Amino acid sequence: MTDRFKEFHQLHHGDRPLLLPNAWDHASAAALAARGFTAIGTTSLGVAAAAGKPDGTGDSRDETMALARGIVRLPAMISVDMEGGFSDSPQQVGALAAELEQAGVVGINIEDGRPDGSLTSVRHLCEVIAAVRQAAPRLFVNARTDAYWVGVGNPGVVAIERAQAYQQAGASGIFVPGVEDEEAISTLVKELSVPLNILLLPAGPTYARLSELGVGRVSCGSVLFRLAVHSAVEFAWAVAHDGESRSDLPSYAQIQALALDFKGERGTA
Amino acid sequence: MTDRFKEFHQLHHGDRPLLLPNAWDHASAAALAARGFTAIGTTSLGVAAAAGKPDGTGDSRDETMALARGIVRLPAMISVDMEGGFSDSPQQVGALAAELEQAGVVGINIEDGRPDGSLTSVRHLCEVIAAVRQAAPRLFVNARTDAYWVGVGNPGVVAIERAQAYQQAGASGIFVPGVEDEEAISTLVKELSVPLNILLLPAGPTYARLSELGVGRVSCGSVLFRLAVHSAVEFAWAVAHDGESRSDLPSYAQIQALALDFKGERGTA
Repeated sequence: MTDRFKEFHQLHHGDRPLLLPNAWDHASAAALAARGFTAIGTTSLGVAAAAGKPDGTGDSRDETMALARGIVRLPAMISVDMEGGFSDSPQQVGALAAELEQAGVVGINIEDGRPDGSLTSVRHLCEVIAAVRQAAPRLFVNARTDAYWVGVGNPGVVAIERAQAYQQAGASGIFVPGVEDEEAISTLVKELSVPLNILLLPAGPTYARLSELGVGRVSCGSVLFRLAVHSAVEFAWAVAHDGESRSDLPSYAQIQALALDFKGERGTA
Repeated sequence: MTDRFKEFHQLHHGDRPLLLPNAWDHASAAALAARGFTAIGTTSLGVAAAAGKPDGTGDSRDETMALARGIVRLPAMISVDMEGGFSDSPQQVGALAAELEQAGVVGINIEDGRPDGSLTSVRHLCEVIAAVRQAAPRLFVNARTDAYWVGVGNPGVVAIERAQAYQQAGASGIFVPGVEDEEAISTLVKELSVPLNILLLPAGPTYARLSELGVGRVSCGSVLFRLAVHSAVEFAWAVAHDGESRSDLPSYAQIQALALDFKGERGTA
């Protein structure tokens, strides 16, 4: 058996950044695996919204764990978005991370953004990172700073300070979502020795450009989830208003090509 | 308080068929409601696949009930796809239907297709329909025959026989998925006194044409779910292969327009 943990780490040091698509349920993960993605993340926004819960509040712990336990059976390496860790206790976050490692999950995301829109203390996230590394040493621990998302005075400076502290605490990689500026991204790459993870943004650099900038991982975040819901709703609206051209309906061949991991084949409704 | 049960029945007798989009999770239902759909169905394929379970086998009972209990809080009338009823006992199906009615669900789908690809006996589904009507008299009971989906000799004849039996047993409406032929649809409309529900199909009549044919309800079935997953996966693939033009990324304005029922606003990953 190949060491999937090592393999996942190595994907951050290839010729191009690891492009991590983010699933929100079993079907989306299965379809991504079927399309050839060998590593798949989860999106906490998607997991929470699918269950009718708010994101980033720790309310989706059970849904996140259940999804992780299901999709580790897919032929893909799975990294799980743990929000803030689903607990204020570093030891409890470590225990949960160990459960995920035990289940076969290869990586996690852990963030410093808090439900009230502030950042948790640097010290707290460092303690969480250290506890996770100790409890689940094989996991790729991607530490995320939300410096660009919360209203801090100088997000670039705060992001670097926090990224370096998290790296020092044992993070395998650093995730800085919300940054679009190429110089800021280059600076982060230079100041860190672990891989930098950037969120793909409409107004930010393309995947190819992020590759040139030396980024180690590019995440889709919640965009796939949001696009999925958007596509479905707009299609229904177009049908209802007769604006739908027939060619936009995915054919059965296309649908079969999705190769979703359904066992039942009889019904399509 | 308006009588949502009566209102849902009446939507089957308007100038145009009730166009029922089908949700698979809370987010898709919330987004459909936000887009103005006042009645929303569920798709058993979507609910099952989202949970990594097969469709039509009754395995998704808990997921279906949990979804129903969540989305009845949305500003939309909800009809729930109960597959074969999640039980072989008509009384137990009736009890489950009563739970849904109590929760505020206005309609259900109940089908004669079985996991092994055969049709259950006419008598069995008639007993289920009667039990549901007795236990949950306000529900719109949409009885579905899978005559066109299973390999019966003459699906048109079988569909009419079954539809009439289900109507006789107390069904509020009849759902015949899989039929694309306009003459067959017209015949079904003529032979039934309750509203006929047709599944929108790529090679079948358009919504406007189904309206002309006298259909009472048009269902999207699993197509929205399948389109959602398809859109997400293809987008991720295009990003990974640099085939993605930036304009295809949904903007934040579009995303905000989705008006998903999220409470948290801080994160987008």
